[in-house]
This record gives sequence, C-alpha cells and structure tokens, in this order.
Amino acid sequence: MQDKILDILRRSHQYVSGEDISAHLNISRQALWKHIQNLKDSGYDIVAVPHLGYRLIASPDRLFPSEVAYRLHTKNIGKKMYYFDTLGSTMDVAEELGQKQAPEGTLVISEAQTKGKGRLNREWSSPKYKGIYFSLILRPKILPNSAPVLTLLCAVSVCEAVKKVCGVEIKIKWPNDLFIRHKKVGGILTELNAEMDAVRFVVMGIGINVNNDTTTLVEGATSLREQNNKVPLNRVELLQEIVRSIEARYLLFQKEGAVSTLTQWRQHALTLGRRIKVLYHKEHLEGEAVDVDGDGALLLRTDAGLVRRVTAGDVVHCR
Amino acid sequence: MQDKILDILRRSHQYVSGEDISAHLNISRQALWKHIQNLKDSGYDIVAVPHLGYRLIASPDRLFPSEVAYRLHTKNIGKKMYYFDTLGSTMDVAEELGQKQAPEGTLVISEAQTKGKGRLNREWSSPKYKGIYFSLILRPKILPNSAPVLTLLCAVSVCEAVKKVCGVEIKIKWPNDLFIRHKKVGGILTELNAEMDAVRFVVMGIGINVNNDTTTLVEGATSLREQNNKVPLNRVELLQEIVRSIEARYLLFQKEGAVSTLTQWRQHALTLGRRIKVLYHKEHLEGEAVDVDGDGALLLRTDAGLVRRVTAGDVVHCR
Repeated sequence: MQDKILDILRRSHQYVSGEDISAHLNISRQALWKHIQNLKDSGYDIVAVPHLGYRLIASPDRLFPSEVAYRLHTKNIGKKMYYFDTLGSTMDVAEELGQKQAPEGTLVISEAQTKGKGRLNREWSSPKYKGIYFSLILRPKILPNSAPVLTLLCAVSVCEAVKKVCGVEIKIKWPNDLFIRHKKVGGILTELNAEMDAVRFVVMGIGINVNNDTTTLVEGATSLREQNNKVPLNRVELLQEIVRSIEARYLLFQKEGAVSTLTQWRQHALTLGRRIKVLYHKEHLEGEAVDVDGDGALLLRTDAGLVRRVTAGDVVHCR
Repeated sequence: MQDKILDILRRSHQYVSGEDISAHLNISRQALWKHIQNLKDSGYDIVAVPHLGYRLIASPDRLFPSEVAYRLHTKNIGKKMYYFDTLGSTMDVAEELGQKQAPEGTLVISEAQTKGKGRLNREWSSPKYKGIYFSLILRPKILPNSAPVLTLLCAVSVCEAVKKVCGVEIKIKWPNDLFIRHKKVGGILTELNAEMDAVRFVVMGIGINVNNDTTTLVEGATSLREQNNKVPLNRVELLQEIVRSIEARYLLFQKEGAVSTLTQWRQHALTLGRRIKVLYHKEHLEGEAVDVDGDGALLLRTDAGLVRRVTAGDVVHCR
C-alpha cells in the first residue's frame, strides 16, 4: 500500500489531496495518514498542507526495491528484488536463492555487508549507505568454460552506466577490478554453479564505492564521489542504470555472443598492451597482455613468443 | 551404543556373554537386551543362547554408515556419512551440505532416490536396496576447467573396485557412462560450485545398478548381478571398495596430477579410437575420438583433420 501511495505522489509532482488518494486506493483518511507517517519514518520527505494535501519533496538515500523498480523498465533483471539493511554477504543469499530456483534476474541488494566478499576469499569493505553492493542471479545457456565472459560483461556494463550517470571514466583491470586513475573503485565477483556441460546458474556480485569520502576508504581505493569533484551521486539512479546496462548487454550476448562486449571491454581495459605478471598460487607467468578470448580468458605473450591462455590469478602491471 | 555393541560382536566371531558386553560398555543387562532387540529390528541376525551369550550371524543388506565405516580404513573419504532410506536426490543434499562447509570426503548415501539425477536434468532410476547411490563432496585445489577430470577419476575408481570385488570388467563411455557389454550399469555426475579461478567444492554423484534383476531394469540397462551369473553382490563391500579406490586415486591426483588416472581411463575407454558423433543442443560434430586431455576433455579428430576439444554433449558411437 505504501508503494502505491508513493507511486501516486511521485507521478504528480504536485500536491495531491488526501481525499483523492484515499478514494483511489479505497482506504480511510485515517489509514492514509498512518501510511504517510510510516513513509516519513522511512526517510521520505512528505509535506502535508491543509486544503492542498500531500506532496513528495524527496526520497531517502536508500536502495529500496520500490525506488529501484520505479521507471526501471527492464524485462527480467530486477523484476524480483530482495533488500536488506545489513547482510553478511549478498553472494551467500543469492547463492541460496539460486539453489531454490529463484528466477533469472533476481537481485539481492544490501545497504551494508559485514562479510563482503572479494575474489579468493578476500574481503570487500561495504560501509553502510556509501556504496552499491548487490548480487544478481543469471541462468545463461552456456558452458561452464564461458562463464568468465560474464565477469567482463558486467564490468563493461558498470563502466557504461557510470559514464552515463556522472561522466566519470572507469578502467578495467583483468579480470574483475574497476579502477579510476589507478585507484580501485569497485569489483565484480562471479560464482558458478554448474554441471560439467551446463551452467545451472551464476551469481554476479557487484560492489562499487559511490559516496564514500576519504575517511571511509582504504589506501589505494577511491569512490565515484571523490572522482566527481566530491559531488555525491544518487545511488538509486546509478543502480538503475547499471541494471539496465547489464540487461542490454546480456540480451545482446545471448543473441549474438560476446563480440560486442569484448570490443567494449578492450576499450576500457587497463591491462591490454602492457607488460604484466600473473601470480597464481606460487607460480607466476610474465609477458605482454595481448587480448582476451571469447570465453573471457586473458591471452599473454611470453618472452619466448608463446601465447598463453590465462584463466586465473592476480595481475600485476610491471614497470 | 548400538554401534559399539555391533563392534564387539563383529570382532569376536564367537558368542560373547551379555555380562561381558554390559560390563565393557557400562550398561545394564536390561539395556543391552533392549539394544539387541533394536538391532534385530534393523535387520541384524543376532542369536542369543543361554550361558553362551550373543552372536552376530549376519548383517542386513543395508548401507548403514556403521557397516560402511567398519574396516574402511580411509583417511578422509567417508569419515563423515549421511544415510537415508529414501531421498529425492543425494546430489541436492550434498550440494546443501557443501554450501554449509561440510568437510571434504563427506558422503551422502540413500537406499533409494525418488528423483535420482542424471546429466542434463535426466532421470536416474534408483530402486530401493538394489543399487548404490551416493554423492561425495570434494574440495580440490584446482581450476574450474579441470573439474571434468574428476568425472574420469571416479569412473576409473568404480571400474577398479568392481573388478576387485566381482571380477566384472566395466567400460567407460565419455564422459560419464559405465557400461558392461554395451549395456549401461552406472554413471557419474559432477556438479561444480566455483569462483572463476577457484573451485569451492564439487559434488560427485555415483549411481550403480548392483543387485537389480531384469524386472527392475529398463531396456539397455544391466546390473552387476546380471553380469555376475546372477549372483548378488554385497553392496557394503562394494561401496567400501569404491570409496577406497576413489581416495587412493584422488590422493595420487593431488600429488602427481591426472596422468595415472588418464592412463587407466584410456584402458577402460569405450569411446577412444572410434568414430563418434557428439550432439550438443542442436549442433553436432563428427570424427574419430583420439584421446582425452589433462582436464578431461575429449579430443576429436574431424574428417578435415582438425583436432577439436569437446567438453560437453552426448556421444553416439557410429557404424
């Protein structure tokens, strides 16, 4: 019911009389007043003026599903959303939902994570209301080998969305790090659940530092706000744009394969054309990063001239 | 307590006086009598003779963890077992346990499955007390790409165990079917849970027709009993041997890689050296199956002379 009231207020941009709202939703004036109080308690700035009615002045800085869904206009992604104030990790909840047949496109959003996950059991700092932390369930009809290309797809989508919303250019360090001017601003995590010849589902995790100021950032990290002349961003708008961008790229990927995503990825790549070291467990491999292949693997030309396919490890840029 | 009583009876091969057992386990004669009744109800054939005591004549044809664990002598595999009379699918329970950090080597055994799983959502018929149906959780330190080699590893282990227990020769059809004289006797299913560059865990599912007579077998299927001159097999003994064989091969794989497993696999392979078709979704590929590679992929030489790496699909033997 509160979502319906919000919907009416959002659409009008004007004062709407309590009588009209009550009549439209078939509730009493008293019930309406109670709902308005609850919305105010949730952070909605709603003014009430006698003889004019109610007006929505501002929505709170929260990634409420009703806010994210409003004018989202996607087909699948975000049709189902789970929202949490604080969570261990959105990945774990999404993984569980994936096991329970949650539909493709399901989002798990949390305002904070106490055990935010990075690659290889590393931690991802997720301070409350500062960033965007969500996991997305996809059920692509691909082989497990091709799953890494989804990491690239989401990375490109985030770059495109951020560019559109605030004009800031993000660069991608293979496989999953998002950088602005050599400082880390976000990352993509991909978890796979598969038979040997069929993906059952993947969980894509996306974490972005959005409105963090320098006090909530570790060394080497940055936020979009810091890179946007300290102007805070509307997190709802950015999340919507990311979701739209992922959906567009994902539909294209299903229809035409990875070509378009790879072309875009190359343009944002921080890693290509550089001399790099790849560290994996105790091994390392050195050479020039020449390209990515259709499954998202990095192609590395060693000094002996051999091209090696790299699917795992940490990349260190040399020099 | 019942396991402890069984243990005493098993070890003695003789009558053991109730007084001795009670004293040893520090329980009353009355309590002992009650436990013995419960064991009889579970199918244990225990005779009680005045002045002599109790003697275990026979154990029931059940895959009880206490039976499987008795003289199993493995280091990890089977240290933790879950046993069910009937289950939807051992895969689903093992998957859930894997998510909950169940240790490597955990077994989920069921006497029957109502929704036994084959590859690609196919069904695996699992009539009660006839076969061996279990899932095994492994946590190998390998890349997701290498997981298919575990399918081959388990297939080879089953071949070795069956050969040892009843002398019957099993052949393997890539990737996961077990055949005797061109009839299907079992299969291996591998489910993967991974990040892009680290396997979190795999669930290996093994289903074998053991004591099925022709009435409980579909066309094209056979059982070990049918191929063993209709002599029924001791399922506990066979399961123990399979578990031991998997552990030995898995330890070797971790230490020295897949070489030994692949060598054995080639000897049992029904597919190699033959002209085959591989069907995947609506595509198909034809040629000669020449080998498997170190990640468990099938190498197919097409008529154009190209060697293609096949990681998915159904193999049809031509001619």
